[in-house]
Amino acid sequence: MTQTERPLDVVILAAGQGTRMRSALPKVLHPVAGRPMVAWAVRAAQSLGARRTVVVTGHGAEQVEAALEQPGVAFARQHGQLGTGHAFLAGADALSGGSDADILVLYGDTPLLRPETLRALLADHRAHASAFTILTGELPDATGYGRIIRDAAGNVERIVEQKGATPEEQAVREFNSGVYVMDSRAPSLARRITNDNAAGEYYLTDLLALYRDEGATVRAFKLDDPDEVMGANDRAGLAEAEAILRRRINAGHMRAGVTMHDPDSVRIEDTVQLGRDVTLEPGVILRGDTRIADGVTVGAYSVLTDSVLEEGVTVKAHSVLEGAHVGPGSDVGPFARLRPGTVLEGGVHIGNFVETKAARLGPGVKAGHLAYLGDVEIGAETNVGAGTIVANFDGVNKHRTTVGAGVFIGSNSTLIAPRVVGDAAFIAAGSAVHEDVPEGAMAVARGKQRNVEGWSRRYWGAMREKVGQKLPWLAGWLERQG
Amino acid sequence: MTQTERPLDVVILAAGQGTRMRSALPKVLHPVAGRPMVAWAVRAAQSLGARRTVVVTGHGAEQVEAALEQPGVAFARQHGQLGTGHAFLAGADALSGGSDADILVLYGDTPLLRPETLRALLADHRAHASAFTILTGELPDATGYGRIIRDAAGNVERIVEQKGATPEEQAVREFNSGVYVMDSRAPSLARRITNDNAAGEYYLTDLLALYRDEGATVRAFKLDDPDEVMGANDRAGLAEAEAILRRRINAGHMRAGVTMHDPDSVRIEDTVQLGRDVTLEPGVILRGDTRIADGVTVGAYSVLTDSVLEEGVTVKAHSVLEGAHVGPGSDVGPFARLRPGTVLEGGVHIGNFVETKAARLGPGVKAGHLAYLGDVEIGAETNVGAGTIVANFDGVNKHRTTVGAGVFIGSNSTLIAPRVVGDAAFIAAGSAVHEDVPEGAMAVARGKQRNVEGWSRRYWGAMREKVGQKLPWLAGWLERQG
Amino acid sequence: MTQTERPLDVVILAAGQGTRMRSALPKVLHPVAGRPMVAWAVRAAQSLGARRTVVVTGHGAEQVEAALEQPGVAFARQHGQLGTGHAFLAGADALSGGSDADILVLYGDTPLLRPETLRALLADHRAHASAFTILTGELPDATGYGRIIRDAAGNVERIVEQKGATPEEQAVREFNSGVYVMDSRAPSLARRITNDNAAGEYYLTDLLALYRDEGATVRAFKLDDPDEVMGANDRAGLAEAEAILRRRINAGHMRAGVTMHDPDSVRIEDTVQLGRDVTLEPGVILRGDTRIADGVTVGAYSVLTDSVLEEGVTVKAHSVLEGAHVGPGSDVGPFARLRPGTVLEGGVHIGNFVETKAARLGPGVKAGHLAYLGDVEIGAETNVGAGTIVANFDGVNKHRTTVGAGVFIGSNSTLIAPRVVGDAAFIAAGSAVHEDVPEGAMAVARGKQRNVEGWSRRYWGAMREKVGQKLPWLAGWLERQG
Repeated sequence: MTQTERPLDVVILAAGQGTRMRSALPKVLHPVAGRPMVAWAVRAAQSLGARRTVVVTGHGAEQVEAALEQPGVAFARQHGQLGTGHAFLAGADALSGGSDADILVLYGDTPLLRPETLRALLADHRAHASAFTILTGELPDATGYGRIIRDAAGNVERIVEQKGATPEEQAVREFNSGVYVMDSRAPSLARRITNDNAAGEYYLTDLLALYRDEGATVRAFKLDDPDEVMGANDRAGLAEAEAILRRRINAGHMRAGVTMHDPDSVRIEDTVQLGRDVTLEPGVILRGDTRIADGVTVGAYSVLTDSVLEEGVTVKAHSVLEGAHVGPGSDVGPFARLRPGTVLEGGVHIGNFVETKAARLGPGVKAGHLAYLGDVEIGAETNVGAGTIVANFDGVNKHRTTVGAGVFIGSNSTLIAPRVVGDAAFIAAGSAVHEDVPEGAMAVARGKQRNVEGWSRRYWGAMREKVGQKLPWLAGWLERQG
Repeated sequence: MTQTERPLDVVILAAGQGTRMRSALPKVLHPVAGRPMVAWAVRAAQSLGARRTVVVTGHGAEQVEAALEQPGVAFARQHGQLGTGHAFLAGADALSGGSDADILVLYGDTPLLRPETLRALLADHRAHASAFTILTGELPDATGYGRIIRDAAGNVERIVEQKGATPEEQAVREFNSGVYVMDSRAPSLARRITNDNAAGEYYLTDLLALYRDEGATVRAFKLDDPDEVMGANDRAGLAEAEAILRRRINAGHMRAGVTMHDPDSVRIEDTVQLGRDVTLEPGVILRGDTRIADGVTVGAYSVLTDSVLEEGVTVKAHSVLEGAHVGPGSDVGPFARLRPGTVLEGGVHIGNFVETKAARLGPGVKAGHLAYLGDVEIGAETNVGAGTIVANFDGVNKHRTTVGAGVFIGSNSTLIAPRVVGDAAFIAAGSAVHEDVPEGAMAVARGKQRNVEGWSRRYWGAMREKVGQKLPWLAGWLERQG
Repeated sequence: MTQTERPLDVVILAAGQGTRMRSALPKVLHPVAGRPMVAWAVRAAQSLGARRTVVVTGHGAEQVEAALEQPGVAFARQHGQLGTGHAFLAGADALSGGSDADILVLYGDTPLLRPETLRALLADHRAHASAFTILTGELPDATGYGRIIRDAAGNVERIVEQKGATPEEQAVREFNSGVYVMDSRAPSLARRITNDNAAGEYYLTDLLALYRDEGATVRAFKLDDPDEVMGANDRAGLAEAEAILRRRINAGHMRAGVTMHDPDSVRIEDTVQLGRDVTLEPGVILRGDTRIADGVTVGAYSVLTDSVLEEGVTVKAHSVLEGAHVGPGSDVGPFARLRPGTVLEGGVHIGNFVETKAARLGPGVKAGHLAYLGDVEIGAETNVGAGTIVANFDGVNKHRTTVGAGVFIGSNSTLIAPRVVGDAAFIAAGSAVHEDVPEGAMAVARGKQRNVEGWSRRYWGAMREKVGQKLPWLAGWLERQG
């Protein structure tokens, strides 16, 4: 078996408490850019084609395990906080029969580490037949980190922690990220780690000496960008990590041909797909499985989740879409709210203060103003008047309504579900439609108008004083009426 | 009396014109982070337990005094702009019988100066039995500021202004902030300040020499962060000060366990209280007496003023709340508008395009879509249909409406106030309820439906040409009708 | 003719492809701060009083020419990409009879170059009787740019490109921006440029040597801010240019007395006019021909296009205005949508979830909640109830409605256009007004109310099980009913 054919197992250390988060939520579950921190590590493992991934849990173990449950991911509990060496062993124990695999150690709180970087680390490890490869970085001032001490030939000799470092060693800028690739001896070697140190902890870094004692090749692989191994330990760190991820994601989309007039204000989760010549106005937020076709514009401050916009679509400012499919050439907003189950087939117009839910709107449907369209199917070219409400709820159940093509729904109408309105029907404005409407029929369900002449003079006259204070024109009119 | 028992008087110099603001508003009234600049100084004075606070006013004196009027704050007018020494004397004159107090001099345009810093300044002053203590800062290049010149022993000798400074003095990085603590001799010493200088002004810095002439201890207390004494002299300066305050406030909340995915976009006034594990999405603005319980999430671009959110509440994107109390487990928005006097008792659902005002909604009330609920009390579990309007206004007066528990209000209904709807009543969709509804009754107040068959053919047929241009499906239907 | 009286012709090179934009849109048409990049160059030319402006087009020529078509702007096509010298000649050929003019060469992708800078460049050129003046800048590291090589006397000798530069020349920090002013010999001299170089291109920089061969004066004029000649070559570059322009525009408004609490979040196109003491809350976007009077406040996240706000106006958060004229003392929003043709005469109140279009509202009109006012004229002091809809559309045509002064329109009313409602008329809540209403009359067009006692018991009783699951209070009530 060649090196590159060796399987990869990944151990993710995610047992820490994270008291500086000051949170009821376990540290590694705090989200960064739409995904719990530890899920970024799991995702990296999967993108490397890991055979098995073991997440070592401790604080909040049940919550962490519930959040990450998925095929290919196993869990190991660390009991007590006895150090990284101890945590690793807990994970390694869950890798039964793993004697042929490389083992990669990752952490639950470094969401910025790129799969590309890990791929390069692995490639270096394998190309040099390394037994133990340390991912390192370089900082102008690496105070606080373990430093990488190399011998005259440039080979890694050891790691010194901040406390034990001589002034010369403290000047070293190369630091240990804590991410390692190891060959399959690691679990058995790790058993030899002792807690014979000031803190009484088992340190995973001790593996370096143990491998060297074996005469094995030990290497360091240096990151280009030390930010990648930045751990987020408090909320400010989370925000910083998120800002870096946001810039990284946005830069990628801009390179691919997306216009953002103010990229710092645009938040795009990494699951989102954007076509060429998409324009995202300031403050746009795109989440989840959102896909946007070439040339589409999304207006300022709109928030889209799990939604699809096809070609030629315009979403205007201040729109909120979730689980909506917007067909080609449709325009939506401003102040539109499309909820899950909305399908706009194409050329549909949704205007301001309009809400849709579980609604399929045929080609060319127009609903321009102040409407609620829930649990409804509407045929092509139907005009939904301002103020139209589909009354889909009877108090405990939701019912569906079907409206045909070419229907004219007059303003301020109510369609009381379950209702069927035939093609080309016409509903008079202000109607409360409580019976079905046949094809081509006009339905009117409102009161007849009665005008009562002289009424205003009596009405306002009775409160003449207040009118005088508040409504000068009307007071004058009243006076003219005598 | 020990030093620490000495009372503290505060003189705030706030008479300047601020022409660079280019404003009709006096400079010190320009708001920073929700509070006029000078009010930050007053607040600092109060948090130090000042016995008396005198604000020296000049330009726009009446406006400034009106804005700051409150117990414990007095005003002194400076007539003419004769220098800081002159302004101080105007203030000191208002401190009658103040011979036993320390006097702190503050300014109306330095909103970033922290009470903690002033407390440390005072403590230093008292611990060293100082007579005159200068708050200083250090800048890489202090050009423009008065420099602190110390003697060989490190004691403060004098202050040189930029103009009079030798090259050596110009290289000094420690500058005078203009903030001083003085012992009770200051008013009488200040009377000896002359205007015998190029500008013909009375400089408060001259006090230093006067104190030294008395053989009194003069000290400098150095700020950690020179930004704290940054004066805001124009709108750009205001914006800069606000940005610093915003970062300071947000960092404090993050340390305490609040998540902000993009803290640069979140604006929180310093009067706001936030629980642990609160999440603030991008663009959230929190103002005034807003209090948010543990674990609550506020959605993107929502603006909350003087509102309370209890545990388990969710406010979705694009909501505007003012003077609202949102009970536990309620959810609000997106696009909700809660106005003053709104009380949601708990588990209430307010959806999109819903406005409430002077409205108490009982546990479990649902108002999901397009409604106006003004001057109304609604009992538990009542369902408010989409498009419901409480017509609370008769042209000059507002009237209240009472709706019971377990009521079903059908969509597009109008409740014409004053109205009483009994428990478990049912209002048919589209009803204009103009009479009270007894408990358990169904009210219907709408027209009966009439369907006119064949009507559409005539209606559209009469405008067949335009239909042909605009509505191809309908044109085809017309054709099929013959 | 004195030098300053010489006419100015401008040649704008705008033929490039811009593959790094990854766009279907020609590079120079990508907008920056509301205007295609190349239009910034055209605008600069016009502000310099250019006699003629020739835009040299190539890639996407038809689109570029269509976008820029206007009096005083001519186009010349460059066929093939044979270098800047070739492009310039194409442009110069279009300047027939231009022998007496200075010629300024600009570019379609440098939107940051200020007219003031170009005016200074021209003034320098003319004051020194220069034949060829190069706009240069200085960078700490000018790698990649052509460097300006001066002789011992400081005169410009030549320009060396990066490739051909010696190490000494590479250390030169002064670079060629590519912007030149030339005297009228330029077109004929440019014909002598050859493509006898490694790239086989015609370089416009060769003009320098050609002018020197003529014994003409050649000068360099150095920019203060090298950012001004930053070319935007990809979307990140566009965003960067936009950020610089935004800061520049906002700084100008702040200097003039506009308050922005968070200027980084405010986007103002350079066509917008703002009075003194205007306050722009976070996230405000102002576009096009928008004019705002002294003292007006625009609330957070509002987006205004081509709209006028007169004195004393307040626009609250989350409002969207386009083509609207808001008269003095009016207040609008939050969540208001004013569309083109809206005129609010003064003291008008527009509240939340209200849309207006082609609507003239007289003094003191109130439309506070959930309304659509389209194609309508409304007289003074009229009160538009919540939920009012003007039904202006019959399926193919829009019709106008006229409402008098002092009218009371009850909530949830529908005015079916074309309709005339007389002064002081009163429309009962919930009416669908399908006939005109005379002055002073009351119109009611709704069903009469009928209460059916005991109905709820039967209704809910029939679905008792679901009620029990979902509505505990109602279930209890049902039980109590027996």
